[in-house]
Amino acid sequence: MERFDIAIIGTGPAGLEAAITAKNRNKNIILFGDKKLSSKVGKFEEISNYLGVGKLTGQELISAFQNHLSLLDIEVTEDKVQSVYAMGNYFIIQGKEVMYEASTVILATGVVMAKPLKGEEEFLGRGVSYCATCDAPLYKGKTAIVVGYSPCEEEEANFLSEVAEKVYYLPTYKDEVHLNDKVELISGRPLEIRRENDVSILVTSEKEYSADGVFVLREQVFASRLVPGLTTDGAHVVVNRKQETNLPGLYAAGDITGLPYQVAKSVGEGSVAALQAVSYLSKLK
Amino acid sequence: MERFDIAIIGTGPAGLEAAITAKNRNKNIILFGDKKLSSKVGKFEEISNYLGVGKLTGQELISAFQNHLSLLDIEVTEDKVQSVYAMGNYFIIQGKEVMYEASTVILATGVVMAKPLKGEEEFLGRGVSYCATCDAPLYKGKTAIVVGYSPCEEEEANFLSEVAEKVYYLPTYKDEVHLNDKVELISGRPLEIRRENDVSILVTSEKEYSADGVFVLREQVFASRLVPGLTTDGAHVVVNRKQETNLPGLYAAGDITGLPYQVAKSVGEGSVAALQAVSYLSKLK
Repeated sequence: MERFDIAIIGTGPAGLEAAITAKNRNKNIILFGDKKLSSKVGKFEEISNYLGVGKLTGQELISAFQNHLSLLDIEVTEDKVQSVYAMGNYFIIQGKEVMYEASTVILATGVVMAKPLKGEEEFLGRGVSYCATCDAPLYKGKTAIVVGYSPCEEEEANFLSEVAEKVYYLPTYKDEVHLNDKVELISGRPLEIRRENDVSILVTSEKEYSADGVFVLREQVFASRLVPGLTTDGAHVVVNRKQETNLPGLYAAGDITGLPYQVAKSVGEGSVAALQAVSYLSKLK
Repeated sequence: MERFDIAIIGTGPAGLEAAITAKNRNKNIILFGDKKLSSKVGKFEEISNYLGVGKLTGQELISAFQNHLSLLDIEVTEDKVQSVYAMGNYFIIQGKEVMYEASTVILATGVVMAKPLKGEEEFLGRGVSYCATCDAPLYKGKTAIVVGYSPCEEEEANFLSEVAEKVYYLPTYKDEVHLNDKVELISGRPLEIRRENDVSILVTSEKEYSADGVFVLREQVFASRLVPGLTTDGAHVVVNRKQETNLPGLYAAGDITGLPYQVAKSVGEGSVAALQAVSYLSKLK
């Protein structure tokens, strides 16, 4: 298997800066994320506190980022990383369907604003799943509820409905939804997941729904779930001023490391993380 | 005396980002530095690892910074800060001729690449000076040697020569020099300053020069000299991840806090320092 020098997870400002810095250092990188880059940045009405670009809308800033990536021939790999495993002197990165290897990893996945639902973590792997693509085969002829935290999860629900007998979709956002006929839109605010007699029960602010399983799909995975053994502090990964985590060769940058949630801060940390990874690589050889 | 909310010292990427961030938060700021901004950035042949701007020359990046300042109506105060004194709940900032007050200070002066000359620190204030403007009046009818680390120090030597009987100028750089007739250009590499019978002796790699005093003029002042009581580690100011120094209300950002010396890292730290200062200010009131 090809082993990348640096795997960068996340296409927000921190991940992108890490990518251009590592690329400028001639490292063999893989950048995981969304080709549309950061949906959070894209939604900014105006940003005027990122030095050198003046006043821009979020979408204009995204375009500037896209141009920078093109200029340096950096491509985004559109896979959603499920887990990262520290193997000693390298890492295994578990995508939806494919595994990858890299000598170093930079976590720049952003921060999960939501708290886990009550019961979510308790029943993970036993009636609760974070990955429709991974677990869809288990739902042939069965029913599933999808709690989607962003519009890109609608595609996951549609995909699941091709296999499952019945899929319910509960969005936590207000945008218009685009679901196929086999998916039933439900409403309310998700509150709790219970498990009774091999049936998963989703409790919402309006009523309770039962199914064989509940998929909780967020753009970001909780950092502590993403990397077993990683030291976290609440929703944040603990890093030092070199962006080092407790796992050698694994760095974190951007919102995932804590406040302030600012483009400038994320970019700075992405730069530092990439240069630390470069320095670590030179010692590995 | 007007008391500023935030005094920002330095017009490199860290100081500028701190200024735009603080201005966006409606703080009353004063930004000390050079209207031409960072001479270090200006000399970059090409920069391609600062996210969003693509590939630029140093001068193009400086222009982008200038435009951003204009857009937010931020002015640069061209005074060279000599000292910063922590007074408890505010700071006194000593310029060349004027004093200023500010509730918080962000140090973003860059890093002094040079080591102090042998004897320089020992004889500071006793035949060695860092400030021609401050000490010129003491040199009426006397002789002085100026060691200039950048072309902007030539103006200082010229100014000194209007008062002093004789001024020698030793540049440590290779650019063409512009001195008036009363200043004598000398050559060699500065090595040591000695003091014998009230005479200062500058030892260079070529010969020894005697005068009443030696001025050692660098663009940056050593951080430990700039702020009495500040905790430093060699040329760097010790900060935590919030850019806090050991002095409450005083923050440091950019190259002055250590490696890597990168625009992205400086910008990130400038943002964090400004937001911390804003937070500190809200607690002062």
